[in-house]
Amino acid sequence: MTSEGALLNRIRKAVLSDGGRRAGCVRLGIGDDAAILKPGRGRELILSSDFLIEGVHFLPADPPNAIGYKALARAVSDLAAMGAAPIGFLLNLAMPPARTGAWLNKFLGGLDHAARKFRISLIGGDLAKNSKADICVVVLGDAPSGRAIRRSGARPGDLIYVSGKLGAARLGLAISLKRFDKRRDARSLLTPHLYPSPRLELGSWLASRRAATAMMDISDGLSIDLARLCEASRTGAVIYADCIPAVRIREAWRRRLHLSPASALDFALNGGDDYELVFTVPERRVKELKRAPSGVRLTCIGEVTRKREVLLVNSTGQESPLQIHGWDHFRRE
Amino acid sequence: MTSEGALLNRIRKAVLSDGGRRAGCVRLGIGDDAAILKPGRGRELILSSDFLIEGVHFLPADPPNAIGYKALARAVSDLAAMGAAPIGFLLNLAMPPARTGAWLNKFLGGLDHAARKFRISLIGGDLAKNSKADICVVVLGDAPSGRAIRRSGARPGDLIYVSGKLGAARLGLAISLKRFDKRRDARSLLTPHLYPSPRLELGSWLASRRAATAMMDISDGLSIDLARLCEASRTGAVIYADCIPAVRIREAWRRRLHLSPASALDFALNGGDDYELVFTVPERRVKELKRAPSGVRLTCIGEVTRKREVLLVNSTGQESPLQIHGWDHFRRE
Repeated sequence: MTSEGALLNRIRKAVLSDGGRRAGCVRLGIGDDAAILKPGRGRELILSSDFLIEGVHFLPADPPNAIGYKALARAVSDLAAMGAAPIGFLLNLAMPPARTGAWLNKFLGGLDHAARKFRISLIGGDLAKNSKADICVVVLGDAPSGRAIRRSGARPGDLIYVSGKLGAARLGLAISLKRFDKRRDARSLLTPHLYPSPRLELGSWLASRRAATAMMDISDGLSIDLARLCEASRTGAVIYADCIPAVRIREAWRRRLHLSPASALDFALNGGDDYELVFTVPERRVKELKRAPSGVRLTCIGEVTRKREVLLVNSTGQESPLQIHGWDHFRRE
Repeated sequence: MTSEGALLNRIRKAVLSDGGRRAGCVRLGIGDDAAILKPGRGRELILSSDFLIEGVHFLPADPPNAIGYKALARAVSDLAAMGAAPIGFLLNLAMPPARTGAWLNKFLGGLDHAARKFRISLIGGDLAKNSKADICVVVLGDAPSGRAIRRSGARPGDLIYVSGKLGAARLGLAISLKRFDKRRDARSLLTPHLYPSPRLELGSWLASRRAATAMMDISDGLSIDLARLCEASRTGAVIYADCIPAVRIREAWRRRLHLSPASALDFALNGGDDYELVFTVPERRVKELKRAPSGVRLTCIGEVTRKREVLLVNSTGQESPLQIHGWDHFRRE
């Protein structure tokens, strides 16, 4: 067996790759030139991919277990954003030979953790040598035909909702960057940054009931992602600062991290990496949200408007264009 | 619009992204969180992905047009290897901001050339900033249910065929590495290295007729890829050096490149990057190969055997284990 073959075998053994509960869809999994898939009757396939690049999305010293988990969680969040159920994923992993030992084992441990949590099975991918670890995860899911929720369906008058709390991942990143990540009281604050939980159950619930007109996940920050949703829908939006479910930053952490009282809102609007959902709901359907899957808070933060601009109303009632500071790989600083 | 959004728009305009002739399968293409696909009745989906990493699969000075073309051609070859027809692809492109100008335009030109040639439409992907250009292309195709050809179906007694000439890409690479690529008489010799032609028509013909028991593409070199096919099929093989359709290296080039007369066979066995097909055919089906799509030479190079080893018979009739020197990213040198 070749070294690459041996490596592939280690990966297959370490990560859920039996087709899982969706084995019926996966006619052929990992190990051939390609995977073979057959979606169920009346269902469509949903396909997306996401990079996790060393030096950009994560730092060399980040825990490899969290890198493995997050590589898959990020991509799975795109399935949640369409309201799709996970089936399988391709792992494309380029890395230095020096990382094929303990680092890889921990990386695969985190990846397997995510695969079992989201019930998604490794069905293929590619391995390559590289000067650093660059990962590209491809996810495949399915949804009832015609029910997947796009970005483009928002209509003026729809209410805008977000799930969970926003800015928590950015707070975790700040703690990590300032090297407070070994503190015992930092542990739970790091979780949203290292081990995000894509909203699969909520997304698929909204899709199956056609309750939302448009949806996407908040991966680059609410400010930029809401602007993208509005652009795709050819609408605008007005959101209210006081309504935004921003992470709570305790006084002690604010001092430690040299943050201002405004940081929580800034993190919520521009932090990114939250993997919560932002979605729009016609007013007459709002009462149905009470029956949404439990365990995730839903907050109305504003309304879709006709005029194609995104406005933020601050605590004193003043309205101004929402500044976009979310994550943009190619913005000129 | 964000800079990333502007870049995305440029890519959409530069590359075939209208769903092409398979628009019926592509319910939603590029621009949302994910693509939506619906395979036709009685068809299965085929999914694969391939890296093209700067400094590993290509060099910084390589022509960006060829890099774009090859990134897609490599991945499409995995569809050919299953006998699938192309539908759509995801472009994952990580690159330095400095490459977003002329370099990107040329890269996209090559990518579009390949997309039109193989009739495959851009349906999504991911963009990221990076210290160099790393590309991961995901391809999706389809095949009649149950007809895709796997690596694992070879049976003792089956004859082993390869398409085209082997080693031509390796010769092109040698010319390029020795900086002879600007010579007028090098031009046609560089084509197999820079602009390979995956055998889509042949692959899909073999699949639709169930004429081959096992198949894969020769991307890492015949020696390593045939060993992989045999391993998946739990068989061995014997191949004949004199039968292998090796690239012809003219005397003048042999001198220029300091090659020995044995180099042609070495390139054919171990060169890689050929993107020809190797497949196995039961003896009673061999006569049907006469009706295979024209324009591609098919050569019988040996036979599948029960004993799990791959043997090479040389010109003098001596048999010895085939040395594996094909491309393995993680081989210890």
